[in-house]
Amino acid sequence: MSAGTIHGVGLGPGAPDLMSVRADRLVRATRHIAFFRKRGRPGHARRIVEGLLRADAVEHAMDYPLTTELPPDHPDYRARLAAFYACHADHLAALAAAGEEVVVLCEGDPFFYGSFMHLYTRLAPRAAVRVVPGITGMSGAWTATGTPITWGDDVLTVAMATLPEPELTRRIRDTDALVVMKIGRHLPKLRRAIAAAGRERAAYLVEYAAMAGERIVPIAEAAARAPYFSIALIHGQGRRP
Amino acid sequence: MSAGTIHGVGLGPGAPDLMSVRADRLVRATRHIAFFRKRGRPGHARRIVEGLLRADAVEHAMDYPLTTELPPDHPDYRARLAAFYACHADHLAALAAAGEEVVVLCEGDPFFYGSFMHLYTRLAPRAAVRVVPGITGMSGAWTATGTPITWGDDVLTVAMATLPEPELTRRIRDTDALVVMKIGRHLPKLRRAIAAAGRERAAYLVEYAAMAGERIVPIAEAAARAPYFSIALIHGQGRRP
Repeated sequence: MSAGTIHGVGLGPGAPDLMSVRADRLVRATRHIAFFRKRGRPGHARRIVEGLLRADAVEHAMDYPLTTELPPDHPDYRARLAAFYACHADHLAALAAAGEEVVVLCEGDPFFYGSFMHLYTRLAPRAAVRVVPGITGMSGAWTATGTPITWGDDVLTVAMATLPEPELTRRIRDTDALVVMKIGRHLPKLRRAIAAAGRERAAYLVEYAAMAGERIVPIAEAAARAPYFSIALIHGQGRRP
Repeated sequence: MSAGTIHGVGLGPGAPDLMSVRADRLVRATRHIAFFRKRGRPGHARRIVEGLLRADAVEHAMDYPLTTELPPDHPDYRARLAAFYACHADHLAALAAAGEEVVVLCEGDPFFYGSFMHLYTRLAPRAAVRVVPGITGMSGAWTATGTPITWGDDVLTVAMATLPEPELTRRIRDTDALVVMKIGRHLPKLRRAIAAAGRERAAYLVEYAAMAGERIVPIAEAAARAPYFSIALIHGQGRRP
């Protein structure tokens, strides 16, 4: 018996037909499918593949531990997440060792932020792991705006809204094009940083790009808290003939 | 008779099965297919869809004008390119007005650098244009390295190697993760900038990601000139549990 492969499969920004042909084939063919979700929720990645799975597919839901009471730099937070990833990596490695193929669903692109990377680093030394890139959520967002994000020699900066406000302001001032993710409750801070950088009129918030409920609002008109699937954008204005 | 739609379709980084399901369907169904290429070459985008087209597909090759004797900021260069894009936009708009559906092939993602955007801005005011996002070449490149590009709060900077050397150095020094594109003959300059930023040992050059000939070399060992399909990367080292 030979060992199976674990596939980290990028699902793209949300619409099922924005999965790659390779991802679509793997998802439809696999017996074992694993995905992250918040406890008690169906899971966004799982929803994207609804209706595509084999009738006998075995679903391995990986429920994030509840850590909202701890800040992300707290040692207990890190320890609890490390144990969570280690446990699920063991489980998937055991399936692969027994000869099973496993698909791990990843929103967007597996190697661009995201949770799969924490499994990947634990699995790669002891199992065959293949990664299928995906269309990023940010590509979904700028496509939704109907305006190209970068032209010519534009510099694009991708930053998380979790950064300190002065650092966000500095980054926003110093770039041609901008993408900000992980916004949520950091939206008021992000808005202040964008305003301080003098770019409030150029910035947009894209909610639920490539999903039902897709909505684009000027950042100045956004509510105080952004949904999880929100990306802020400033389009580059670089050289064009 | 109703007007047709012009679809700007992202093909992804190069492997045909990394096209999205939506892109694959559009490419296989369309009667009219348009793509950019260098005069006398088959065209990289066209090669990606080899074997997928309808037997009666009409191919509209858009041969870039020869402008190598002019620098990109020369007025004649801009004027010649502007005329080129205007001409092909007129042609595609006429097809759409006559009720035809047209697919324009785009390497990577249509709104992330690239040539399609210059058609798009000329077509959008007068025709129905839809854009299908794609997996970027940079996703193909970092997936090829087998190492995630960004973690936690990492800042990612995407810059073109055409920038002046001091500007490149400053950007490389001031980011967690880095992607550099449009390298070609600028590789020696880029190497000097990476070395000046103290990051030579962290930087890789990925040639022909997701294509035949895929190759990853430490930037210090790269040849003096990079092939057109080359992307330089520095992986982020951000927070991980």
